Parts: sequence; structure tokens; C-alpha cells
Amino acid sequence: MQNHLSFIPLGGIGDVTKNMYLYEYNNQILIVDCGLGFADETMLGVDLLLPDISYLLKSQKQIVGMALTHGHEDHIGALPFLLESLLPAGRQVPSFPIVGTPFTAALANEKLKEFRVNRKVETVRFDKPDIQFGAFNLTFVRVTHSVPDSSNIFIRTPMGNFYHASDFKFDNTPFDGKTTDIAKIESLGKVGVICLMSDCLGVEKHGFSKSEITILENFEKELQNCKGKFIVTTYSSNISRLNQVIKASERVGRKVCFIGRSLTKTREVAEKLGYMKLKQGMEVELNQVKNYKDSDLTLLVAGSQGQEESAMARIANGEHREIKLRKDDVIIFSADPIPGNEVSIYSMIDSIAKSGARVLYSAVSRDFHVSGHAFRSDLKKMADLIKPKWITPIGGNFRHMALYGVMAQDLGYNKKDVFLIENGQEIVFTKDSARPGKVISLKKVYVDDISGEELESFVLRDRQKLSNSGIVIILAEIDSENGSLVNKPDIIIRGFTEYNISRLRIKLFEELKKVFGSKKGKVTNWIYVRKQVGETAERLIFKTAKRRPLVLPVVIEV
Amino acid sequence: MQNHLSFIPLGGIGDVTKNMYLYEYNNQILIVDCGLGFADETMLGVDLLLPDISYLLKSQKQIVGMALTHGHEDHIGALPFLLESLLPAGRQVPSFPIVGTPFTAALANEKLKEFRVNRKVETVRFDKPDIQFGAFNLTFVRVTHSVPDSSNIFIRTPMGNFYHASDFKFDNTPFDGKTTDIAKIESLGKVGVICLMSDCLGVEKHGFSKSEITILENFEKELQNCKGKFIVTTYSSNISRLNQVIKASERVGRKVCFIGRSLTKTREVAEKLGYMKLKQGMEVELNQVKNYKDSDLTLLVAGSQGQEESAMARIANGEHREIKLRKDDVIIFSADPIPGNEVSIYSMIDSIAKSGARVLYSAVSRDFHVSGHAFRSDLKKMADLIKPKWITPIGGNFRHMALYGVMAQDLGYNKKDVFLIENGQEIVFTKDSARPGKVISLKKVYVDDISGEELESFVLRDRQKLSNSGIVIILAEIDSENGSLVNKPDIIIRGFTEYNISRLRIKLFEELKKVFGSKKGKVTNWIYVRKQVGETAERLIFKTAKRRPLVLPVVIEV
Repeated sequence: MQNHLSFIPLGGIGDVTKNMYLYEYNNQILIVDCGLGFADETMLGVDLLLPDISYLLKSQKQIVGMALTHGHEDHIGALPFLLESLLPAGRQVPSFPIVGTPFTAALANEKLKEFRVNRKVETVRFDKPDIQFGAFNLTFVRVTHSVPDSSNIFIRTPMGNFYHASDFKFDNTPFDGKTTDIAKIESLGKVGVICLMSDCLGVEKHGFSKSEITILENFEKELQNCKGKFIVTTYSSNISRLNQVIKASERVGRKVCFIGRSLTKTREVAEKLGYMKLKQGMEVELNQVKNYKDSDLTLLVAGSQGQEESAMARIANGEHREIKLRKDDVIIFSADPIPGNEVSIYSMIDSIAKSGARVLYSAVSRDFHVSGHAFRSDLKKMADLIKPKWITPIGGNFRHMALYGVMAQDLGYNKKDVFLIENGQEIVFTKDSARPGKVISLKKVYVDDISGEELESFVLRDRQKLSNSGIVIILAEIDSENGSLVNKPDIIIRGFTEYNISRLRIKLFEELKKVFGSKKGKVTNWIYVRKQVGETAERLIFKTAKRRPLVLPVVIEV
Repeated sequence: MQNHLSFIPLGGIGDVTKNMYLYEYNNQILIVDCGLGFADETMLGVDLLLPDISYLLKSQKQIVGMALTHGHEDHIGALPFLLESLLPAGRQVPSFPIVGTPFTAALANEKLKEFRVNRKVETVRFDKPDIQFGAFNLTFVRVTHSVPDSSNIFIRTPMGNFYHASDFKFDNTPFDGKTTDIAKIESLGKVGVICLMSDCLGVEKHGFSKSEITILENFEKELQNCKGKFIVTTYSSNISRLNQVIKASERVGRKVCFIGRSLTKTREVAEKLGYMKLKQGMEVELNQVKNYKDSDLTLLVAGSQGQEESAMARIANGEHREIKLRKDDVIIFSADPIPGNEVSIYSMIDSIAKSGARVLYSAVSRDFHVSGHAFRSDLKKMADLIKPKWITPIGGNFRHMALYGVMAQDLGYNKKDVFLIENGQEIVFTKDSARPGKVISLKKVYVDDISGEELESFVLRDRQKLSNSGIVIILAEIDSENGSLVNKPDIIIRGFTEYNISRLRIKLFEELKKVFGSKKGKVTNWIYVRKQVGETAERLIFKTAKRRPLVLPVVIEV
């Protein structure tokens, strides 16, 4: 019998998203988190990434349980894909237990239900006894972050204790009053921790992360001066942020309308758990908005990252059926751009500015967003409370991990006490040593999400298979003056049967003619047009041929 | 005879770059600036944009002169393309005079020489008499910005006076001691100005733009603590910034090496004009670097925006022949990311962080860069000195222009006094009125710059012709473990003759095998690989077929 504990990240190191970590002891494996990754624009035709779990599938070891730290997509989003879809035919994941705090479990179960995956995440409560998964004993610790019920996990093993500090910050005045449980962290630190796995994404920023409460009065002030619609876009899961906007709206006598599928969904979950309460008559349905004066309305809208199919994008581009921007409206981006999304977001903001409405975003005002992540002082405080022998920064890009390493030296750690590793790199812990172990080779695993924000259907695909799935290139000439299709688009199809190619070509032309046939007015957002061509094609091809080739839309401005 | 003056922007409004403005009086046209635009990632296969000058080519009016405000690419970069290349066969631009301040003219003439365009930009000096171009009288006013000899232009016309305030800020302590000529601006304001055309890019930021001098001591402090190579990357034309690094290096006894073609070129121009002086023996040639200790060296490197073929990219990716990063090195990004470049820049920074070197960039430290643009207080001060009747914000995205409009209301202007226009929108000025006039329909004009930073050759191309120039798609499978090509790449070619297609396919395969044949080590930067595939193909196709089709590289990770 080996006498050590292995920590292996399958995702979440060096790339922020698709968080998934393994703790192995003898033949037992504990999994922490199971998140999605987000593709950048260099990955053409691909929207989402998954952690590569081939190591788990090949391993003879037993998965004794999975623990979810919080309800963000990059921590729970891969669940429906990995629990069933990725399995080779005939194999089944042994039915290990999966646990998460109330909001985490509720969001994860919604997702599993939506994808018709017959598994259930069990709810753990912060005030209930520990969870025992084989040789692992788990204590959930409440922390503040940008989604309710976020947790860190204290993991007792026969080799010693670990503290898994995924996304957190020390907010002493969170909007829901539920602070990070500092007393518990301190007492767990005193029990003794071998290694702290710590969030590091905010390490570039000095001081403590600002409190959520600081923005409530800023919303109120803006609301008091707003003569038109008050529109706020933020992450759907940031319930405290939504609650602050709702509270401020209530104070000035405005009604609230939720717009966007992801928002209405998380809102339902939050309401069911009692995390969001709207007074009787406070809410307006989207199709009732037209019956109210603009100055009576606050709209909570999904799409703060510039997602091209989101409600916010449609509103910004003047293509939303119910909501039209007017010059007295105020639009607030209550979120920072994630690196890589700037072009889409700024293009959206420019479109809004053209309507004459007032638009506020982080480059103009820092008043409407605070980060959910620990800044440098929070990170130091955590390390100081836990007092671990070793530290592994997680959940950051390499530049953040490296900077955490430098910061740890200020705290008295030696360089070799801080492990700067890549995904797939094992760290081997014994009672009195820690060293890098084997390296598991990980592949990029992609999943296509054809309908943007609306995860209605999906198909899994390994990048290796891309060339086999075929490729469709569409050269569409669009009239810049009226947004309509000029000439027959040039369509190149590879990897389909001759029969399918000619059928697809005809259908694609018909569909594009339908979507881009009517004149809509001057094109202001070419990014949006290009994505629209791509998505029209993807949907049609899936409907017609039940396949998902790589679709490359090329839009030619005429 | 019409009795009005027309202002028509051909570029620079709503999209920041490709600045080009027309002032028309009767049958005379004055052109201000002639800049390049930079394509974002939504414009596949295209690197640069040009202002559309078809209006000028069709017009029967006479171009009486062109004035350049400063030496940045987005103000002078289109000169070699537009002065000759864009002309239909058999036509010639009438030989109107072109003027600019000493550094502006020197940079522009370098560029014209490089492209073998037989035209000359004449030098104007701030202390010399005004320039008369037909009915236009031009007074150049010195302003501070991030390139030497930046100017604003006071334009006297029979219809009244205009103040063209392209990129500027009020830096009271610039490194070269040459401050914005406030006294002159004030006296020109007193002469009376109908309309102020004002930079607005920095309007999101409150207060005054910080002085260049504030970063000198920060460089010195960093240098004193640096035990390895001291590497700074910034814009090649930011001579004051380079001078500050040189001065700080001199103080601590380090020698300086310039790396990157654009840098060595601007450096030559600056030296010739006496704007950059290196003490005897202070400079080290790149091929001599190996003879010095790391701690004796400061490297000034081109590529601060993550350009994939730049010297900085090659150093970051461990692919530079002479320069290898070591853990004691310090690398400073002395520039902010331009929106859209974040993914490339951060990927570069992550690569550097993996080397163990210390890397400083704006998210970590604001100590090593200041903006060259006016912030809100600078903008207000300019408007206050000029006291124009009307204002047209220029050189910003629409969100900046809209915000400038709101700010102008604080200064007592009515909404209708500030023109928020788009490129191609004429404003018609008479002695006592100003109103929007005709709209010139402008097309996007693209230019391909196949060799990234190194503008060796080029070809002009209108987007409309894209489908006629052909398209080449390359699906290359690259081994993530060693960076080499796996299998024969799948190559799709459209729009070439059958003969050319088969020839190209063979040659492309051979070329890609050559470039990606040898094993190089684990791939860390997929963006770079994809661009490399694209550029390898573009070069080969141009060499073989003398054509520039749209090349879409698709890299499949294996």
C-alpha cells in the first residue's frame, strides 16, 4: 500500500476556468468541482471546454465522492457533460455521492434536470456535521464570493489536513449578511494544515477586496436621477447584486422585470430557497412592460459579457422585440470585462451610446461592480489564518500563480514551499514531505453550445475529431446600408456525403435568405452579423444533418 | 459660389484609428492626417484598414495641401498607400504640398522612402510663420503627446477659424521639457474659433492626464533591484519613454540594446534629429549581447501589444535566437493594452511568468506607463482656452464622443452645439451657423500586411473583392507535446485555377512540413501557432501565385 496523498488538478490551473481537482489516497479519489471552460476567439467554432477526465476513466481507483465549492459555471458546469456524455458506450460512472451547499446543489440539480441526467447533488449545510467520503472527511466553510453559499472545504485525510480555498473574499458586510466564517477558518488552521490550495486570481490587486454593500447607494443615486428605464446587466448567479438593484428600485418605487433565460432561471432557484424575495406586485412580466411608463421600470438583463445572442445584445442592437432604448434610459454594466470579451462588450456599449442613452461601465465608473475574488490582503489573511506548511495557488493564470508565489515569500515562505504547477501535474504529500510527482497528459476537450446563452442541446467533441466532423464555410455578402444578403452566398462544405452537400447548400441558402432577406437598416455591429450567420448555419445543419461541423462564417461588407 | 466651409471626416470618428479629415472651402480641400486603421479579430485575414478616399478621387475639387498633426501610424500610416497605390491606373494625385513638424515629417518620409513612393513631406517649425494652403492659413501649435513634436493646428478660413485638436494632453513636465504651448492656445482662442475638433479618447478618466516624468524614478527603483536583464517593451515612437529608460540605465551603469525593426528605425530618426542621444559606448548591438553579463544590460524591445511576430513575442515564447529569459530578469510592459489585444498580451505575460522572471504590466503596477491622451480635465481646459462656438469630438469611439457631449454640457454648451457624427458625415459651417450636411458613403478598405511588424510588401484590397481573391483554409494538426505537424494538413482552396490549386497544395504542404517539421517542445501558446500557420501560408502563396487570398488557419491540437 502506498503511503501518500496525491493532489492532481485536471483543470483550473493556469487557465482560470474548468476547475476540477483530485485528491487521491490509496485507491480512493475525492473530486472537488467539475467546471466548464470558456473558449477564446482563437478556437474557431468552439464555445466551451471540459476538463479531460480520461485519467479518471482509465484509473482502477474508486471515486468516493465529489464536492462542489460553489455554483459558478466554471465549478459545476461540466457536471451534465461528464457524468454521462463523456462515458464510452457501455461504461457507467460508479454512483458516487455528489455534495454541495444549498444554492450550489440547487443550481447543479437544475442543470442536471435540464440535460436529463439522472443524478442528484445532495445538499450539505454549513451548520451540519462533516461529510465522510471513504478516507476523506470534509468540513464546509462559508465564504463570501459573488454567488450565494460559496464554500471552502477543509479536507481531513490520513496523511494530514488540506484546506481547499477556491474562489473567496473576506467581505465583512455582504448584502445577505452571511460573512466568511473567520472563526471557523482560524480554528481549522489551529488543527493544522499541510497544504493550502488558494484562489489567486485577484493577487494583482492590493489591499482588501471591496464589500458588496458599497454599491447599494450608488444604484440608488443613479435611480433617483433616471428619467427613463433603468437597465442593469450582471452575472445571472450574482443574487446579492440583483437583490441590491431590486431593493434600490423598491425604494424609488420602480417595478422590476427579469430578461434573459439564464437570469429567470437562477432567479427561480433563488426564490425557491428564499434568497430573493420580491414584494407582491413588484415584478413585471416581459410582455407586460409595454403597459408601464419607462420611469416606472427597472430591467435586469442577462448578457454583461457581450454574449452575442443575449438579451442585452439584442437590446443594444435595437433588435429586441419588447425593449427599445430611449435617450432617457440608463444602462449599467455591473460586471468587469473578462479578458478577451472587450471587443464584444465595447461594441455593445458603442451601440448603446448611439441611442443617446446614458451607459455606465467599469472604464467610466467603478461604482457599480466589486470583484468576488480575494485581493492581496485577503489572500495573505487566509494564508495567515490557515498557516499551512505548503501552498498551491489555484484558479488563476500562470501570471497570477507566479505573483502569489512572490507574495508568499513576504509571508515567510520559501520559494520551494509554493507549488506553481500546471494542470495534470501531481503533487505527492506524505506526513512530512511534498514533491512534484507524475504528469498526466491532458487533452483539450471541447463542447459546442450552439445556442449561446441558451443551453438547449449540445454535442460533445474532441478537438482531434474536428477534421472528421466536417467543415462549412459561408461567405456571405451583406449590404452595409440595410443589413440584407447580397447575391447567393458562397458555401464551401467538406466532410459530408455528396448528397448531403447539395441538400445542405440549398437549405443554407434558403435559411440565410430568410434571416437576412429583409432590410433592417444600417449595419452598426459587424461582429453580431458574423455570429448570426454562423449560428443560423449551425442550427440549420444540425436540424438537417444532425451533425455539428466546424462552421466558419465570413462576412463581406458590400 | 457656395458660401460655406465643410468639415468631413473620412476616418477617425467612431473607430479611433485611420484618422483623416477634410476641410472644404469652395473648390479647395485641405486634408488633415492620413492614418492607418487596425483590424480586430472579427476581420479574418486582414491586418490594416485605410480611409476610403473615393470621395476625393471623384471630387472635382482641388487638394490644396495636407497637414500631419503627429507621427503615429494612425495619423500618417496610410500615406504610402493612398498617395500612389490606391490610384486607378493612369491617374495621378495632383502634387499638393504635405507638411508636418520635424519628427512627424522625418517619420513620414522614412515610410515613403521604404515604400519607394516619390513624395516628400516638408518640415514646418513651431517658431516659423504660418503655412498658407489656398484659402487656408495654418498655425501649428506644440502639444504634449506620446511622440515628439505633436501638434494641434489652428486653421484660418474665410468662414472663420477652426482649432483641430487631435491627440494631446497638458503635460507640464514632459521629459523633453517641451510643454504644450498654452499661451499660444489662449491667444488663438482670443482670436475667435468657430469650431473645436477635439480628441476625446481619454474622456472616461477624471482629472488631468499624468506627467511622463512621474515614471522615471520608478524605472530607476526597479533597475536598482534588478539582478538580471532589464527588459522594457513600449511603443517604438514613444521617444521620451525610451529616453527615460536610457537615462535610468545610464545612472545605474547599464548598457542599452534596441531589439525589433520598428524600434531601431524610429531610434535612427530620433538620433538624427537630436531627440535621442546615447553616450559613447552606451549601446550594445544585438549580436554582441552575449558578451555582456545580464546585469549589465537593458533591452528595449518592440511588441508591447502582443504582436505575434514581434521581438517581444519571440523572447516570451523562448524562440528568440539571442535573448533567453532567466529568472532574475525583469520585464516591463510600459504600455496599456489596446482593447482587443488583451488575449495576446496576457498570453505573452503568462509565457514570461513561466520562465520565472519578474513581469510588470498595467494590471500589476501603474508605475510604468502614463497615457498620452487628454483626460477629462485636460479636455475641459482646452475647450475653455479655445472657447469655440461649436465642438466636434474626434478620435474616439462613439461611447467617448457621447461622454464628451455630456461633459460639454457641464461647460455650458447646449446639446446641439456638440456634433456627434460618424465618418462621412459633413458638417456645414457658415459665419453664424453650423448644421449637418450630406453623408458620404464610405466603404471599409483593407490592406494586408503579411509580415506583421515588418512592412516589407503589401497589397491593397477592398473587402468586396475578397470572394474574388480566393480563399485558402488550412486544417493543421499540431502535436501539443512537441509543436510539430501531425499528418498531412487538410487544405481547401477556392478561387484559383485547377493548375494553381494542385501546385499550391503541394507547396503548402512542403512549406508547413519545413516550418513545423522539427520538434520544438511543448506548445504553450496556441494563438502564436495559429498565426504562424497563417503567415507561413500567406507568404508561400504570394511567392507562388502572387496573390493574397483570405487565409484561414485552423489548428487542431493533437
